[in-house]
Amino acid sequence: MVDFEKMPLIPAIVQDADSGKVLMLAYVNREALRLTMETGTAWFWSRSRKELWNKGATSGNFMHIVKVMVDCDGDTLLYLVHPDGPACHTGNESCFYREYVGE
Amino acid sequence: MVDFEKMPLIPAIVQDADSGKVLMLAYVNREALRLTMETGTAWFWSRSRKELWNKGATSGNFMHIVKVMVDCDGDTLLYLVHPDGPACHTGNESCFYREYVGE
Repeated sequence: MVDFEKMPLIPAIVQDADSGKVLMLAYVNREALRLTMETGTAWFWSRSRKELWNKGATSGNFMHIVKVMVDCDGDTLLYLVHPDGPACHTGNESCFYREYVGE
Repeated sequence: MVDFEKMPLIPAIVQDADSGKVLMLAYVNREALRLTMETGTAWFWSRSRKELWNKGATSGNFMHIVKVMVDCDGDTLLYLVHPDGPACHTGNESCFYREYVGE
């Protein structure tokens, strides 16, 4: 369903399973997806730190997977989660707390 | 707010402004974002066709922008929209109609 040969790193949208709020977007490789399915918490690949990243390992705000969806092309994931706390490092519930109104 | 110098192509999540359903994800460059703000309908950059793409120009299913949000890092967008019809080329309302249960 997901062709990591073609695209080793794909975006995963994270959405609150209850409120429907879009919380964040991060990137996933084959291993991060495997760990997500195995542990039931959201794992990503950090492009800046170049390492696997279990969201919440530092902050305590884990994201518990309710369901993982894959898009028609098999190159984007949607994680439906129950978050233990804010998704954003700023303390905001969602990383999308600013409206874009042009440059 | 968005640094297209650093990252010329960024993902835009599309969410139904009313239902909260995540509909699709596509990519946006500076010009696609400018056209989105100017026309009030969703524009993207098609990575396969290598051209600007006004969603709905072919199908008639335009996505009317309610609000554009930008994330904390300024490298992901969230389009909140009123869609004229299904987002997915398969006819599904959302491109995320399949659950991922492992390979």
